[in-house]
Amino acid sequence: MRLRHKPYAKEKIQEYPHYVVTQEKTIKGNWLSRFNENNPIHIEIGCGKGRFIIEMAKRYPNINFIGIELQTSVIVTALEKQIEEKLPNLQLLQANANELRDYFEDGEVDRIYLTFSDPWPKNRHEKRRLTYKDFLTIYKAILKPEGELHFKTDNQGLFEYSLVSFSQFGTLLKEVYLDLHQTDQENVMTEFEEKFSKKGNRICKAVLTF
Amino acid sequence: MRLRHKPYAKEKIQEYPHYVVTQEKTIKGNWLSRFNENNPIHIEIGCGKGRFIIEMAKRYPNINFIGIELQTSVIVTALEKQIEEKLPNLQLLQANANELRDYFEDGEVDRIYLTFSDPWPKNRHEKRRLTYKDFLTIYKAILKPEGELHFKTDNQGLFEYSLVSFSQFGTLLKEVYLDLHQTDQENVMTEFEEKFSKKGNRICKAVLTF
Repeated sequence: MRLRHKPYAKEKIQEYPHYVVTQEKTIKGNWLSRFNENNPIHIEIGCGKGRFIIEMAKRYPNINFIGIELQTSVIVTALEKQIEEKLPNLQLLQANANELRDYFEDGEVDRIYLTFSDPWPKNRHEKRRLTYKDFLTIYKAILKPEGELHFKTDNQGLFEYSLVSFSQFGTLLKEVYLDLHQTDQENVMTEFEEKFSKKGNRICKAVLTF
Repeated sequence: MRLRHKPYAKEKIQEYPHYVVTQEKTIKGNWLSRFNENNPIHIEIGCGKGRFIIEMAKRYPNINFIGIELQTSVIVTALEKQIEEKLPNLQLLQANANELRDYFEDGEVDRIYLTFSDPWPKNRHEKRRLTYKDFLTIYKAILKPEGELHFKTDNQGLFEYSLVSFSQFGTLLKEVYLDLHQTDQENVMTEFEEKFSKKGNRICKAVLTF
């Protein structure tokens, strides 16, 4: 994503600690204390400007959603939407995907959404892809035993790579769609999904357990 | 495949027992006796009119190929090509995929090609798909431990189904291509592959071990 510098972003995030967790690692194991209801926790890794997670939080009030994004100038847009919406079942977390075990207790998460992650197409950047085995190790740890990973991308190379990575890691595929928008599957689009789909790219999706 | 009745086919096949195995189940464990060289055995399940397996046999003289096809009026075309070519590293087998353990000893096969199998799109026909678990059980048995299944199709629904079936069976994916013809992978086309590809269908491929 092209990042636009937003000088006010950091201050804004600090003004809303009840909506955005940043460095406060005491949150680990205590996420339910940030929500009104004792409901399952679904997280999106790389929530960007928050369109997907906010729409999901509206559509599924009985799920507690957490949108995770590292970039200050991006997560601030998600925060601005939440300041308007005031959704009780939505929290934001500014953190790096490789640090998630500092923020979540083992088994604390019921579902992970991985949406339109950076494909890092060069071989030498394989370890940065969010479906690389080191990340899968993290997802497996923080998910409940039957917890699902829902992975969507329009990038064919990343999807091919990920299917192999999932298999080598020993995950269990439950569903695969090579052209999601041509199915009758319920689907909430992300910003990227709408953009890439309009360009004619097919959207791929996999659902798996560990 | 649309079948054209060929009244001469059965007789023709019987005339060439050195090229086509039919009911002779004593072949099990003895396939190398039908070839000049003690080379690895690669089989194609559903070889149709034989274009793929014959081209493979020409290109790879150090592999012993067996083309398997049930339909008399189809396999006869593969036989007619072989009568012209006289390839020493090619045999044909008229048999049903679900009977393969009667024709092959456990671990006798080094590689299986599954090319443009009938997708059987209706749910009630799932058990007929050649990537249904009962068939995978057969493939696993007749393949050597490190033996590979190479699966190609243009049918998106069959490919999606098969990826899930492979995972649930516990196979290990080594390679996945969602648009094989856009890669630099070496590839020999089947009759169907050329036809469907010309229509604009993308060719999918998976390589896996059991």
